[in-house]
Amino acid sequence: MSQPKEPILDIAHLGNVELMTPKPEQSLWYFRELLGMEVVHQEGQSAYLRGYGDYATTTLKLTEAKAPGVGCVSWRTVSPQALERRVAAVQATGLGLGWKEDNFGRGRSFRFRDPEGHLMELYYEEQKFVAPPQLKSTLKNLPQKYMARGVGVRRIDHLALLCKDVPKNRRFVEEQLGFKLREQVLFDQGRTEIGSWLSVTPVHHEVAYVVDIKGGSGRLHHFSLWVDNREDVLRAADILAENGVFIEAGPSKHNNSQAFYLYSYEPGGNRIEIYSGSYLIFAPDWEPVTWNEQERGTGVYWGGALPESFIAYATPDVPATDASQATQEAMPAFPIY
Amino acid sequence: MSQPKEPILDIAHLGNVELMTPKPEQSLWYFRELLGMEVVHQEGQSAYLRGYGDYATTTLKLTEAKAPGVGCVSWRTVSPQALERRVAAVQATGLGLGWKEDNFGRGRSFRFRDPEGHLMELYYEEQKFVAPPQLKSTLKNLPQKYMARGVGVRRIDHLALLCKDVPKNRRFVEEQLGFKLREQVLFDQGRTEIGSWLSVTPVHHEVAYVVDIKGGSGRLHHFSLWVDNREDVLRAADILAENGVFIEAGPSKHNNSQAFYLYSYEPGGNRIEIYSGSYLIFAPDWEPVTWNEQERGTGVYWGGALPESFIAYATPDVPATDASQATQEAMPAFPIY
Amino acid sequence: MSQPKEPILDIAHLGNVELMTPKPEQSLWYFRELLGMEVVHQEGQSAYLRGYGDYATTTLKLTEAKAPGVGCVSWRTVSPQALERRVAAVQATGLGLGWKEDNFGRGRSFRFRDPEGHLMELYYEEQKFVAPPQLKSTLKNLPQKYMARGVGVRRIDHLALLCKDVPKNRRFVEEQLGFKLREQVLFDQGRTEIGSWLSVTPVHHEVAYVVDIKGGSGRLHHFSLWVDNREDVLRAADILAENGVFIEAGPSKHNNSQAFYLYSYEPGGNRIEIYSGSYLIFAPDWEPVTWNEQERGTGVYWGGALPESFIAYATPDVPATDASQATQEAMPAFPIY
Amino acid sequence: MSQPKEPILDIAHLGNVELMTPKPEQSLWYFRELLGMEVVHQEGQSAYLRGYGDYATTTLKLTEAKAPGVGCVSWRTVSPQALERRVAAVQATGLGLGWKEDNFGRGRSFRFRDPEGHLMELYYEEQKFVAPPQLKSTLKNLPQKYMARGVGVRRIDHLALLCKDVPKNRRFVEEQLGFKLREQVLFDQGRTEIGSWLSVTPVHHEVAYVVDIKGGSGRLHHFSLWVDNREDVLRAADILAENGVFIEAGPSKHNNSQAFYLYSYEPGGNRIEIYSGSYLIFAPDWEPVTWNEQERGTGVYWGGALPESFIAYATPDVPATDASQATQEAMPAFPIY
Repeated sequence: MSQPKEPILDIAHLGNVELMTPKPEQSLWYFRELLGMEVVHQEGQSAYLRGYGDYATTTLKLTEAKAPGVGCVSWRTVSPQALERRVAAVQATGLGLGWKEDNFGRGRSFRFRDPEGHLMELYYEEQKFVAPPQLKSTLKNLPQKYMARGVGVRRIDHLALLCKDVPKNRRFVEEQLGFKLREQVLFDQGRTEIGSWLSVTPVHHEVAYVVDIKGGSGRLHHFSLWVDNREDVLRAADILAENGVFIEAGPSKHNNSQAFYLYSYEPGGNRIEIYSGSYLIFAPDWEPVTWNEQERGTGVYWGGALPESFIAYATPDVPATDASQATQEAMPAFPIY
Repeated sequence: MSQPKEPILDIAHLGNVELMTPKPEQSLWYFRELLGMEVVHQEGQSAYLRGYGDYATTTLKLTEAKAPGVGCVSWRTVSPQALERRVAAVQATGLGLGWKEDNFGRGRSFRFRDPEGHLMELYYEEQKFVAPPQLKSTLKNLPQKYMARGVGVRRIDHLALLCKDVPKNRRFVEEQLGFKLREQVLFDQGRTEIGSWLSVTPVHHEVAYVVDIKGGSGRLHHFSLWVDNREDVLRAADILAENGVFIEAGPSKHNNSQAFYLYSYEPGGNRIEIYSGSYLIFAPDWEPVTWNEQERGTGVYWGGALPESFIAYATPDVPATDASQATQEAMPAFPIY
Repeated sequence: MSQPKEPILDIAHLGNVELMTPKPEQSLWYFRELLGMEVVHQEGQSAYLRGYGDYATTTLKLTEAKAPGVGCVSWRTVSPQALERRVAAVQATGLGLGWKEDNFGRGRSFRFRDPEGHLMELYYEEQKFVAPPQLKSTLKNLPQKYMARGVGVRRIDHLALLCKDVPKNRRFVEEQLGFKLREQVLFDQGRTEIGSWLSVTPVHHEVAYVVDIKGGSGRLHHFSLWVDNREDVLRAADILAENGVFIEAGPSKHNNSQAFYLYSYEPGGNRIEIYSGSYLIFAPDWEPVTWNEQERGTGVYWGGALPESFIAYATPDVPATDASQATQEAMPAFPIY
Repeated sequence: MSQPKEPILDIAHLGNVELMTPKPEQSLWYFRELLGMEVVHQEGQSAYLRGYGDYATTTLKLTEAKAPGVGCVSWRTVSPQALERRVAAVQATGLGLGWKEDNFGRGRSFRFRDPEGHLMELYYEEQKFVAPPQLKSTLKNLPQKYMARGVGVRRIDHLALLCKDVPKNRRFVEEQLGFKLREQVLFDQGRTEIGSWLSVTPVHHEVAYVVDIKGGSGRLHHFSLWVDNREDVLRAADILAENGVFIEAGPSKHNNSQAFYLYSYEPGGNRIEIYSGSYLIFAPDWEPVTWNEQERGTGVYWGGALPESFIAYATPDVPATDASQATQEAMPAFPIY
């Protein structure tokens, strides 16, 4: 009997997410005052932020742009050698873009695009956060003081990317980067892969690929930040509501991922999730959980159903094409995410 | 410039813990009725249990014995090849005991002892839990129904082992098994390693080695089970108090690990922790956090100080030897864990 | 300057609610196994239950009947003299029914109907709960052990009653019983009183009167039980979902009352709310908060909107009359509760 | 059989507490930045604050003074007539001081001293808080926006006062003001009344009288502020710890009152409690719960025992007198509160 192939264990974690925003000041207000993140650096058209529990100097980059959406998604490898291996694997696919040297808070990175065209990079060297006096925690193993301003997100968690061809993108990150498939939504008796949730760590997913029903290109569905308790998610709902931020969905419990979530749009237009709960996956032989149309249902285990906008809207926003219109009509009732 | 050595990524997770108990029926009552675990099998002098979120068939084995303590600690590898590599590494140290074939819920395992003498094993094959109808969850990605009986622990988390020589045992699991050091308590200006917390996954620690101040042998300090929210820990305190179970410490917040904890003794005498919070470690170049006498303080970030019994008591209980008496007197004020 | 009239302070609290059920065994399962209440007595077609924090022997009576709905609602007075005063006031309205002597757990009561026809009673004498050994708490000021079975509701909180004429019923309890108006939904520029929430204690409301859009008679909208924390409401959602109980709405936050709620139907058909949060009202000159169509909105502050069934369904269920159909069409969009 | 005397129901609630502080700026920082209260007015040596859920304009007055302690404690009546009745009752005891006209946020008040000498006042007229635009909540029934700054205390809850003669002070508020006794600590087989907890509303206690073992005069043990969930108390511990505020006790659960508490000293020296949980008392014939030495135990149901300072320290601080020394030695082991 042949043994299973050994897993690729070269990616350590999601390192950084760049969000594009046409309203940089208001976006900064949202992430700093409402979510309680710290701004550690500003340079050119970008601001660099962090959650109070993030080990790295910065984990979120906000960049001014004409339209919202996702900029570069950065993945950290477990070692310099692992970086070399993954770069070689990506280059072999022809999707590599080349090395970039000047990264705030990180060493050089290798940039590439996933098959859908989302910009990504791999890197190993990273600057650990050293708190200035006013941000120094009284808890030695906490990289930064808990500031008790707004929500107080602890760290970045994951992001969901839209694409025209889910299996193609899913296989790319599985094969070139070593992501493991955790859950899937499969329609038409398993023939249509609507969405796939994958991770490199025991965290349920660091990336999800979901079909873009409007036929857009390289779009972001949402970016997610972690809080430690469900009670923090409820408190976040109060904070967003008090500050006039539109809450699109939640607080509710996903069936997929079991997470307790709250979705709002930051002023630049990107969908942001405040996220807790979920479950960790340790099994090396994890069998992906699949959901068909009936099982997927309204996309929630309990709590209000996900609204239509949850499918229709992503960043940058695009008008529906004729083709996507047809796809949409052919699809079963929402929501699919 | 030489590159850092590549990390060993062969151990997937803590798979199973065996606890010895002189009062098997009462211990079963504690784990089943109060903590809300399920009994999936009984065989010989052992009962096999699981938390509702555990992927494997069983994660806790309760075995009748003359004295309490820890039996065999099982570590699962990421692949059959990884199992071979780790077995070879352990065998090279002369601490290997040999293969064991008949394991309920798991394939064959390789048994060994850590330098202190704690019995451990490595294995890869494991039986995923298939819930019988009465335990089937309505949530497809949950291995088992949440029964809402007692505390409702989700999964096993970690264990703390006492030993005479912390660095020796710490180095053994680092070098032979690939554990990464997360935090350390170092006294005497770094010369005395009082305790070390290590893990193979982003979970803060799956094992801790702490000095046995009474000079015992192969003893257990505590075994820890996870709940999803701090509120569940508070509820656990009510449940234990209502059922006459002695609460030794907590609910309080550790400084080390940042976890929110509650310690009680199960009727067999073993110290059990209900545990939540803490933080995940993703950085491949994590710098271990070290605590000296002053920083370690009372062992808590806030909440009642850990009591003297927290150092003095472990299972099996032993009378203090003359030597240990001397060690104890030479040591700074407790607590050290 | 004339002084304000002195408040009537004669009613102490909601003492007991009787629910009718066509499925007594299944209803009992719901309240005992899922909500975690205790059955203290069974007699004739009725079972008597209590929450673990209820001071009285029993606070919920479940009675077998052809259709679900509310039976008798019992209000306790602050003294025997207060009982006499309120009985006199009620008798003067012609709505009195007379004294009833044989009440399990309570002394004699005076029965009457509110203008809509809901059966109610006033009483003073009540049997404090004396826990049998197996229900004795280790906490001296807790009437009963916290059993950690299912949700674990602490006490009864309030009920919402439907009626054809809200102001008439509202004025009856204000004037004859001393209820104070807390919040109101007023449509048509204040001309149509859609619902009123009233209480005799600082608890936000012990009773709500809401318009019956289907023109039924003496119907129950919902009965509500208290848990101490929002986290308990979330846990309740898991428990109901795991046991196949239909969750109609929530967990979400009401705008009116600020409460965190979860609505399900017990097997007999009655809508039951698990309830926490809200706010206490201490001001003797409290100005009722009023909500117009726009302010009322979807009836939630955040979380999923209340579904159409939340208006359309009550117990006993009735077909819509022509008149109610007309009313319904004339009304603005739901929800009104 | 004679009927029980009718209860006095003239006091509506605790309206305001004045705290004296030798460090007004630092105290203001504590209440505003850490506890998240709003400063609504400053006048003379005083600042007026409020919790976000307080109905009145102000509920806490901070006054600069040489030593910390409690200033005037204000009780609101249910009506102008009730005010007259209670003033007459107090005046008859000879403890009345007279009317005071100029009160910020309130109408005229009648000042008096309790038998121990604590300054108190009765009033009826009060200014409801009208939020300025920047403090306006999006939730119509919330007097003020939830600011998400620091702890975010919702409202004031109660205070504990020290005295030389507990029964004398307890009887005074029972007989003249209508307070109802909720719980008591009685030592020496019931002969020594160590502490009594009383309230006029269903809230467990608005005032506690506890013996002053150091023989001080008119001292404050602690002042307590409410948060809605136990999770908020845990979060408060993180906030205080991060800001270098000494946490004296908790988060833990009292046996008396069942409340979940956290005690710290504000920079002026007064002991402040962050408080949630507890239970409401609705029964008009509530039987006070009494605790003897053994039952009282360490003063907690679970969590760290109350420290010695919890008895020894109060504001203003005083040296122990010889007499108090003797009393102290004659008393059983702490803690008594």
